Amino acid sequence: MNGAESLIRTLAMAGVEVCFANPGTTEMPLVAALDAEPRMRAVLGLFEGVCTGAADGYGRMTGQPAATLLHLGPGFANGIANLHNARRAHAPVVNLIGDQATWHLAADAPLTSDIVSLASPVSGFVRATNQASELARDGADALAAARGAPNCVATLIAPADCQWEEAGGPVPVPPSAAPQAVGADTVGATVEALRSGAPAMLLLGHDALREPGLHAAAAIAHATGAMCFSENFPARVERGGGLPAIPKLPYFPEQALEVLSKLGHLVLVGAGEPVAFFGYPDTPSRLASEGTRIHTLATPGDDAVAALEAVAEALGAPAAPRAARERPEAPEGALDPGSLGRAVAALQPDGAIVMDEAATSGVGYALVADAAPRHTVLGLTGGAIGQGLPCATGAAIACPDRRVISLQADGSGMYTLQALWTQARESLDVTTIVCANRAYRILQVELARAGIAEPGPKARALTDLGHPDLDWVALAKGLGVPAVRVDRSEDLCRELAASFSEPGPRLIEAVL
Amino acid sequence: MNGAESLIRTLAMAGVEVCFANPGTTEMPLVAALDAEPRMRAVLGLFEGVCTGAADGYGRMTGQPAATLLHLGPGFANGIANLHNARRAHAPVVNLIGDQATWHLAADAPLTSDIVSLASPVSGFVRATNQASELARDGADALAAARGAPNCVATLIAPADCQWEEAGGPVPVPPSAAPQAVGADTVGATVEALRSGAPAMLLLGHDALREPGLHAAAAIAHATGAMCFSENFPARVERGGGLPAIPKLPYFPEQALEVLSKLGHLVLVGAGEPVAFFGYPDTPSRLASEGTRIHTLATPGDDAVAALEAVAEALGAPAAPRAARERPEAPEGALDPGSLGRAVAALQPDGAIVMDEAATSGVGYALVADAAPRHTVLGLTGGAIGQGLPCATGAAIACPDRRVISLQADGSGMYTLQALWTQARESLDVTTIVCANRAYRILQVELARAGIAEPGPKARALTDLGHPDLDWVALAKGLGVPAVRVDRSEDLCRELAASFSEPGPRLIEAVL
Repeated sequence: MNGAESLIRTLAMAGVEVCFANPGTTEMPLVAALDAEPRMRAVLGLFEGVCTGAADGYGRMTGQPAATLLHLGPGFANGIANLHNARRAHAPVVNLIGDQATWHLAADAPLTSDIVSLASPVSGFVRATNQASELARDGADALAAARGAPNCVATLIAPADCQWEEAGGPVPVPPSAAPQAVGADTVGATVEALRSGAPAMLLLGHDALREPGLHAAAAIAHATGAMCFSENFPARVERGGGLPAIPKLPYFPEQALEVLSKLGHLVLVGAGEPVAFFGYPDTPSRLASEGTRIHTLATPGDDAVAALEAVAEALGAPAAPRAARERPEAPEGALDPGSLGRAVAALQPDGAIVMDEAATSGVGYALVADAAPRHTVLGLTGGAIGQGLPCATGAAIACPDRRVISLQADGSGMYTLQALWTQARESLDVTTIVCANRAYRILQVELARAGIAEPGPKARALTDLGHPDLDWVALAKGLGVPAVRVDRSEDLCRELAASFSEPGPRLIEAVL
Repeated sequence: MNGAESLIRTLAMAGVEVCFANPGTTEMPLVAALDAEPRMRAVLGLFEGVCTGAADGYGRMTGQPAATLLHLGPGFANGIANLHNARRAHAPVVNLIGDQATWHLAADAPLTSDIVSLASPVSGFVRATNQASELARDGADALAAARGAPNCVATLIAPADCQWEEAGGPVPVPPSAAPQAVGADTVGATVEALRSGAPAMLLLGHDALREPGLHAAAAIAHATGAMCFSENFPARVERGGGLPAIPKLPYFPEQALEVLSKLGHLVLVGAGEPVAFFGYPDTPSRLASEGTRIHTLATPGDDAVAALEAVAEALGAPAAPRAARERPEAPEGALDPGSLGRAVAALQPDGAIVMDEAATSGVGYALVADAAPRHTVLGLTGGAIGQGLPCATGAAIACPDRRVISLQADGSGMYTLQALWTQARESLDVTTIVCANRAYRILQVELARAGIAEPGPKARALTDLGHPDLDWVALAKGLGVPAVRVDRSEDLCRELAASFSEPGPRLIEAVL
């Protein structure tokens, strides 16, 4: 058994079921080892950002890491943006990166580069193997790290000779760090704060946004009058079907400052302290008010749900009454972010997974999605655009019995459109709605916020996606995904219904 | 004047004429400064790898750096693969990367990351500015570094507050390191080696592959009987129109070892010592024979042309007779790499720029291109695929009076297909020929070389680009570039002739 086989068998025996791959010459022994391992599925991406974004989506939905298989430094680099998002999502991912043979590194051949320097900013674990006999053990350590609490991106650099040379067999994977139980003192401090009568907010992130956390938080809020918000770009939220509706902290800092003003207590539950997404002149980084006391009930590595339940129990908080919100009707007439959002909420099937990278076009859906049937939302955690199509792809691989709805801004979608081809090849049940406003609209807003009321021709050209207009129907066709363009609400509704009733991917270009 | 204006004016006054941009919120003051600076053109790319690859192509053709404008760590990361190629090409590039405001870095907002760690592996100069008053000076230093001998990739990280705060005016750019003159001793040692009578080879790279270097090398070879080769992936070569024909060192190490065997002397002229592109079992890293003496006549930072001319003069070598090779006729019949290459060589206009990322499909053109009219070839220097379409785009911006021919493998083209949109928006005279063999053919070859004679279904799936077939005509249409598909030689010739006779971009999908 060679090193590659020992590594792939180690991961497969430990339950790694999928590898999102874009291999090259230095990964050929790993490709052969995948060929020989029936327990691991290999999914080809035509660009590495597709592989890493898909692994992120898969990890968020299953709680288990997929592997990626990437080609040296430059190939890995193409996957960094989506690994940045995965890191911010605390998603489990195991990257396998081939490298030059150990004895060939010194030759500084054309593809040689400093992979550790590239990988470190997005990885919670980085290791370069230096002999075949260690490859399985290093892979096991990477997997254990990825599965730790909180989950992380683990990167293993596997030189080609360590793959092809003889090695021992597969090895067992060491246990991972489990979520930390939150101590009674911490629970008690939160209870005391919430009982103080001062205005309070629970800010939820990470696992607190799954169903048990939402119920416990809603019970606490109902019993104490505390507000309850989620962080601005949560990795995964359960929503709809009568689940407690938790608004997101607003994106722009002046709005977030308003929401956070006058709080006596801010309780962080799996979320970090709220900070501005970007710094602006005369606006602070940290958004909580000076007089607000900040309590960390649970970090992302803690058992946030048990902590919330303990707080609810200590408060004697009964379950909050279920919100009953009427589902919006299918809209008619002109298409805009509002009617687009109502169309999706009106028609989405029960149990959908909604990948939201709609940027400014998503505001309408956010207003009504709580009234839709139960679904899961995946967010743009790290702000690195180009997450949506790959992450939707990985979520669909993870959950073949659920419809994935990819709400996609057109500008952001262009970064990783190659994901559509993987959706076609794997016949994934993904409905992509490209919100085609033909602009980097958020940048036009930001230009205005920066005081540039009347941008000149260059600033306009750098924020405009027209001239020529992108033709997403043709792009999807080129990648093997059936597609249609709509500019009326009733047409969007018809095409959504058609897509939801048939298997496989479909793209709808919604011209806004 | 704010920091952004002081930086952009500094670069514009020093002759930086183009900025390939994909900005975000943290770059808005730089966008506004570009708006106010008539001397610098702003070209939008819809993916950062387009911007960096275009800057590489622009730098190779003009010898002067373009700027790029990129968005924090994740945006920059999307440009790394093509900067890796630029680094290997010794191409001049100045990257401007916005970052969080200096006082906002500590908040670790979602897009914050370690940009220096990401940038260092591909940059000869990296600096993060920390106050507005330093931004112009840091930009001047970056530009001076990029223009040094050899040229390099220089990366400047510009925090948002350093852009928007008040600063002094533009500053002059310090002089750059000039190419080093090669000493008489070094010239003498080369002359002695070439006169020794032992078999010798000149291995040319970098500037030695421009016209004066080729003539001097050919004269030396003609006078002494030395062989003359170029490095395997040269950044830029002048070719055709009767210029001395210099073959490339073969790609596979066993073939290169054969060519290099039995040499008494190997003279490096702007090239590095030949090494294998990848390490293989039982194959050495360094390809020169044990008994061969290696002489470095010129490094890439030296004046290689003057050194070659000094050697030729010392040898009393007359100009070599011009090679007269008959131009191939336009082919007919089935399309394969051979007929594809003959079609291009038969029809390409005088003075074309050929971006060669055709991979295995390029072998036919390499055999006949010397017989074509005078042209410039750009190569895949770093092996990071996805260079072709962006680099062709930048070359077309650099040389608006020359037709660019983008010989593009289909698998590699998928990494950065967004470049076609920039070609359409800027109405660039680029003819893209997608060599559609619908496979990562080189990996199928490498699988066989690794002893995997009969790959299983997963290995086949990971090297196959079919299922579904990519439709490049639709992809080009989606990006605004007129396109056509051909599978016969005469149809390819007809479409090439049509494209060469009309302005603007065009894509031909050549099904092989």
